[in-house]
Amino acid sequence: MRVSTVQGFNPRTGQPFGDPIESTVDSEVDRICAAAATAFPAWSNLPAADRAAVLDQVADALDAEADLLLSTADGETALGLPRLTTELKRTTNQLRLFGEVLREGSFVEATIDSPNPDTVPPRPDLRRVLRAIGPVAVFAASNFPFAFSVAGGDTASALAAGCPVVVKAHPGHPATSQETARVVTAALRAAGAPEGVFGIVHGQDAGVRLVQHPAIKGVGFTGSTHGGRALFDLASSRPEPIPFYGELGSVNPTVILPGIAAEQAESVAAGYAQSLTMGVGQFCTNPGLLFAPVSLVDALASAVGGAQGGAMLTERMRDAYRSGTDELAGSGLAELIASGPEPEDQGWAVGARLFRVSLAEFRDNTEKLSEEYFGPSGLVITYTEDELDQLTEVLALLPGSLTGTVHAASGEPELARRVGEALRPRVGRLIYNAWPTGVAVAWGMHHGGPWPSTTNPLHTSVGATAIRRWLAPVTYQSWPDELLPPELRDDNPLGIPRRRDGVLGTH
Amino acid sequence: MRVSTVQGFNPRTGQPFGDPIESTVDSEVDRICAAAATAFPAWSNLPAADRAAVLDQVADALDAEADLLLSTADGETALGLPRLTTELKRTTNQLRLFGEVLREGSFVEATIDSPNPDTVPPRPDLRRVLRAIGPVAVFAASNFPFAFSVAGGDTASALAAGCPVVVKAHPGHPATSQETARVVTAALRAAGAPEGVFGIVHGQDAGVRLVQHPAIKGVGFTGSTHGGRALFDLASSRPEPIPFYGELGSVNPTVILPGIAAEQAESVAAGYAQSLTMGVGQFCTNPGLLFAPVSLVDALASAVGGAQGGAMLTERMRDAYRSGTDELAGSGLAELIASGPEPEDQGWAVGARLFRVSLAEFRDNTEKLSEEYFGPSGLVITYTEDELDQLTEVLALLPGSLTGTVHAASGEPELARRVGEALRPRVGRLIYNAWPTGVAVAWGMHHGGPWPSTTNPLHTSVGATAIRRWLAPVTYQSWPDELLPPELRDDNPLGIPRRRDGVLGTH
Repeated sequence: MRVSTVQGFNPRTGQPFGDPIESTVDSEVDRICAAAATAFPAWSNLPAADRAAVLDQVADALDAEADLLLSTADGETALGLPRLTTELKRTTNQLRLFGEVLREGSFVEATIDSPNPDTVPPRPDLRRVLRAIGPVAVFAASNFPFAFSVAGGDTASALAAGCPVVVKAHPGHPATSQETARVVTAALRAAGAPEGVFGIVHGQDAGVRLVQHPAIKGVGFTGSTHGGRALFDLASSRPEPIPFYGELGSVNPTVILPGIAAEQAESVAAGYAQSLTMGVGQFCTNPGLLFAPVSLVDALASAVGGAQGGAMLTERMRDAYRSGTDELAGSGLAELIASGPEPEDQGWAVGARLFRVSLAEFRDNTEKLSEEYFGPSGLVITYTEDELDQLTEVLALLPGSLTGTVHAASGEPELARRVGEALRPRVGRLIYNAWPTGVAVAWGMHHGGPWPSTTNPLHTSVGATAIRRWLAPVTYQSWPDELLPPELRDDNPLGIPRRRDGVLGTH
Repeated sequence: MRVSTVQGFNPRTGQPFGDPIESTVDSEVDRICAAAATAFPAWSNLPAADRAAVLDQVADALDAEADLLLSTADGETALGLPRLTTELKRTTNQLRLFGEVLREGSFVEATIDSPNPDTVPPRPDLRRVLRAIGPVAVFAASNFPFAFSVAGGDTASALAAGCPVVVKAHPGHPATSQETARVVTAALRAAGAPEGVFGIVHGQDAGVRLVQHPAIKGVGFTGSTHGGRALFDLASSRPEPIPFYGELGSVNPTVILPGIAAEQAESVAAGYAQSLTMGVGQFCTNPGLLFAPVSLVDALASAVGGAQGGAMLTERMRDAYRSGTDELAGSGLAELIASGPEPEDQGWAVGARLFRVSLAEFRDNTEKLSEEYFGPSGLVITYTEDELDQLTEVLALLPGSLTGTVHAASGEPELARRVGEALRPRVGRLIYNAWPTGVAVAWGMHHGGPWPSTTNPLHTSVGATAIRRWLAPVTYQSWPDELLPPELRDDNPLGIPRRRDGVLGTH
């Protein structure tokens, strides 16, 4: 049966939060997509610095409405005001980072080759620049109601590129999505952005229609492997296939080396428990697999056993967490060694869980034991001092992850190097003596990795280079200077970094 | 029935050329893929400058064996020694360009962010670099037996990136493919590249197995829309989907503005006929659709009617060209206005054909009339002086193409600008007062475009940035300097261009 409304809930009580929101009907999805297509030429032709100013105004407007946004999000997600305050700040900082990216200008990869009749084949005047691909769809995540949602990184990077955005709201926080969309829409209008440059839809059917709509030229997605794969298949099987950037699940292998386990058992265990259980474990970068010496097990079990649980984002997630970890506990494949206290169950609360398996047992069941249980559940894979070679072999068998982490003492750099090399081909970010949760927004960040952590390992959903997903090259050959876009004109009127005859500079 | 051999033919006679070559059996495909996977760590970890030296040696070896390669290719393709000599030179220049790219070093996009505890979220030390994605498959094209084949641009860019390559040879020139593979394999071995870094397979089944092989992490393809789409669908529906870079068909709209048609009718018509018929029209950048003033029609018909035909590459192509253009002539949708002389038919010779339709008629049948007829066939879409607005509207309805071209007199820049803007979103390369055939190999070249000209409009198969298709980011967070790859070490030992704290330089 067709769902005709989307209802938010308070995870702390299980009671409805706010009014139901109507699912977007087909004709309205079509209208929104058509408006995005109409807005595309004006938005993408706006000078990059002008788009930057618009993004800044959107950021300012979100900051100005922080109180309402934060209380709404806390009511719908139970993530708590401190975390949500940080997340909203991160979100507006993302918008401002893309403003910086636009003003700096190298994101268009302006490249100029002088004519050379002596090459084979002869080279004419060639000038290459990146341009927006068209309107794109953004599927918001459950676990970051701001930073990976309506005004999150996918939206910021796509708007920055010059692409109109149609967001598919996550059903876990419809009211937050609506409030955010209201603020974004008003700010865009006040800043003079073309009508239709931003839209929002609700409901699963609307999302499917969006991915298949001819006006949509790319998709950003953050969510489950199952849902992401289904939408990726739709995007790939369109008459005109379009790029689908899905950030899916990840088990984020983390390796504690013997030296640091001996030197700093308590602080490593405490750090792990905090990373595993923060935000009730609802992070794509949650350290799901921990490789640790046998000696560390007691400290880990004690730390996780003492960690606070909390309410998960949706009833379905709570159910999946419980049934998944119950099944693992009953499977005999791994031993349940710690269960954190479960808050009194008025809503969708769960407690942390820690499982244990030996390296040899893990190796025999790598695929099954590498499954992700979204929430505060971890698996410790114990190894002995004489199993270090096997350890690096097992790391090479892991599925692709967003992150891989090594904790090492100063006296074991060679071992750290070997483990890092084993992890590198399987992950997008390598972390040393820190925890994978927490993704900085910066030029050098990469948030992506081999399948199944993403559908396209060549690109990132966080950081400055996320903009590259929404841009395609065009080369002007022997084009008159006065008809070229300013990025490619001979005198470089924008003063942006360019490559001329193979050399980077501002010439 | 399963084809067990691949037989080349002499297109000038239709007789077999050389001995039949065995199709590669499944177990051999698997062995070659496994060898590529084994070679991957050593090849991708080789310093970029060392890979550059290897590519130079491959180029030198191909140049040294030019006589044999050229005579074999001429016998199998009938493209003629002058054209093939240029093409082989282009091919070795491509290998050398990627050597330049590797030595310059910015292709890894090295990016360093200093720690900053005051940002939200706090920023650790972040260092991002691009790394090879793994072994890749390359499907060779029919129409460029060197430049888009065994040692062509896909192979050169992938080897440069650090990816082992398994080539699926094109059945139109198996002997050329084998000879090229022999030279490449020997040169790689002599240069000390790891065994297995390059392999070749023959036969359609082997190609299908290649795209589905778990060791293969990406595919480059040049060929028909039909074949490319089928393989794209296979690559996308794998348990682990992989990127598929298909360069497919293209009709390459070309617009002759009224001013230049009046000023230079003869030279425009001659240039068009030459571009349409060179290489018997077997170019992805062939100007299939020509928008021209009515006044130019006679000159165009005369030029194409006088153009030489020639032997097509394969019997299947000859048959498809004949049946396709016969069907168009009989459809009543367009009028056949010129037929070039068809060489005496001992082999697979065809003559040029020119069709004509009015702008209004074209608009009524855009989809049908935008079909590509691979070979020396063109469609002239005539417009009148008072149809210039309709002209730009019709251009916006065209399918995606690799190129779009404008011919304008010096007195009509405003019209050139409008036509250029109409073409830009539909093409990958915009050409002014020249013809689309001929693709220079340079930093700023883009050879790609919107669907159906490519499966992935964000990337190019020609030019320096083709290497980006085979690279994925990895970010090192708080990683000890001595364990970092040299591209990211603090003192920049390679002296490559890098971005540090958002600023490009060599710091």
